[in-house]
Amino acid sequence: MRTIAIIGMGLIGTSLGLALRAADPQQAPLGAVHVVGYDQQHAHARAARGRLAIDEVARSLEAAVRAAQLVIIAVPVQAVQPVLADLAPLLAPGTVVTDVASTKGAVCGWARDLLPATVDFVGGHPMAGKEQAGPEAAVGELFQGAIYCLTPDARARAEALTLVEALVVSVGARPYFIDPAEHDAYVAGISHLPFVLSTALVAATSASPAWKEMAPLAASGFRDISRLASGDPRMHRDICLTNREALTRWINELIALLVETRESLAAEDAAALDAFFEQSKAARESWLASRPQLRPGEEQLDPPQAERPRWPGWLGGGKQKK
Amino acid sequence: MRTIAIIGMGLIGTSLGLALRAADPQQAPLGAVHVVGYDQQHAHARAARGRLAIDEVARSLEAAVRAAQLVIIAVPVQAVQPVLADLAPLLAPGTVVTDVASTKGAVCGWARDLLPATVDFVGGHPMAGKEQAGPEAAVGELFQGAIYCLTPDARARAEALTLVEALVVSVGARPYFIDPAEHDAYVAGISHLPFVLSTALVAATSASPAWKEMAPLAASGFRDISRLASGDPRMHRDICLTNREALTRWINELIALLVETRESLAAEDAAALDAFFEQSKAARESWLASRPQLRPGEEQLDPPQAERPRWPGWLGGGKQKK
Repeated sequence: MRTIAIIGMGLIGTSLGLALRAADPQQAPLGAVHVVGYDQQHAHARAARGRLAIDEVARSLEAAVRAAQLVIIAVPVQAVQPVLADLAPLLAPGTVVTDVASTKGAVCGWARDLLPATVDFVGGHPMAGKEQAGPEAAVGELFQGAIYCLTPDARARAEALTLVEALVVSVGARPYFIDPAEHDAYVAGISHLPFVLSTALVAATSASPAWKEMAPLAASGFRDISRLASGDPRMHRDICLTNREALTRWINELIALLVETRESLAAEDAAALDAFFEQSKAARESWLASRPQLRPGEEQLDPPQAERPRWPGWLGGGKQKK
Repeated sequence: MRTIAIIGMGLIGTSLGLALRAADPQQAPLGAVHVVGYDQQHAHARAARGRLAIDEVARSLEAAVRAAQLVIIAVPVQAVQPVLADLAPLLAPGTVVTDVASTKGAVCGWARDLLPATVDFVGGHPMAGKEQAGPEAAVGELFQGAIYCLTPDARARAEALTLVEALVVSVGARPYFIDPAEHDAYVAGISHLPFVLSTALVAATSASPAWKEMAPLAASGFRDISRLASGDPRMHRDICLTNREALTRWINELIALLVETRESLAAEDAAALDAFFEQSKAARESWLASRPQLRPGEEQLDPPQAERPRWPGWLGGGKQKK
């Protein structure tokens, strides 16, 4: 029986608890688990317990980690630093610590600076989420088939990696080992730039004096592209602040492309516009075709009879494990 | 029995045919109809006939409109001008002409210049669509509950308006009368800017040397925000070229917001980022709550347990008819 502490009973922490407790101990590489949950807001931990996401509510950080072999920090990225500082004196030698924050460079730096050499840190980032926040929104299936990035500290023991990898597989996700700086640069493009764009689109249109007349005309296209603007503002802010450099580079790319498009419009350059739309359509279709697997429910995100990605057996990349 | 000619058997033309032929003649304001279809590419018209979207395939534009009381031009916006020129000498006095193009200023100007005074023009734009093009992608339910913009020419007789309004209601959509210039400014923000942004995002990320490593990490958020980049490149190009001024204004707004965001990042201005994300989240949620009705299948576009818009009885705006 392994004891696992989850610090932070928000969407991800509670969903991890649900997934861990739903896993078959005979099948899941983590085996039988006892999950202890803690949240500064005690009501969140109680709600998680009410949803059977955890076996036990801890009243303090100390109580949460006392018997834990594995500690999962599932708080907003800006809160990871103080939590690591608070945890440092409480962790027994040999404890393995991981997190779920959306940026990894800052988090891995804090862990290196703050945690004692007797514990191992393996950064983590499940590529899964939804707009809604809090324990009520949690679902145990959230990680099924999702890529789960792991950025182990250079000092971490092999056993620590194996343990966190077992966690990932037990919740139904697929481990993807990656360097923290690479991780941050990549997710800035495919995750952080998208929510900035989605938010900017809503900001631009809804600030218009004509918004009241425009709004009824907006249909499913607007709905889809604006979906990320409904995400948690605090999480988005924290991600931006801990990934400023990579995100700024992507924002600059985007501005350059918008300026080019504006110039194509001014010049009535049909060929340039053709190339712009055709190349992106082809790139997206090739991306859809390369996707190894849709997560449950994702196929419903497409309109009826929409493009159906093919399902090749596995990812092309060489970094993928399991 | 009314004879209706549809010129252009693409997604919209064929879907209109399906919707018209599926409508109950006892209930639909248009009554019993005989639908004639024409497409420059004869195979498209044959495919539409094979799907029972039309009663009859016409071999020429002349044959298509010979007996028609109502002519629906359903070709890409740049092709509307030559089609209007070709139609002009063929139309019997009293014929009513409408179109389905996504921009209305240019189209209404062409109609005024090219059509004889003996026929009536009422511009139209159903706020419905999907990424796939061609008669194979057509669905008769495409317009159910959708807003259908109508921009009548000042010269059009009241009977012409009534006839086109009956068409809109017969296919399950809701007429929304609007000035062509207003229409173009509004849809530039809620429809054309979105597909430019979606395309620019795919262009930026897929052009990166790291795209091969990034692509597997992209998940449902990227998928939704990039969906519009899979639309018909030629249609997108034509829309851009016929709505250059309005679209350019929106692109400038977006660039300004991205520059502001970049400055907030550089200054580590958490309060500015908070305001940016919070205001847009609130604006989107208020938009979702105000939506009068989801079209069939749209509720599936949201992830499981996602925000559920409330369904007030009707649109707030005063322009809505029926």
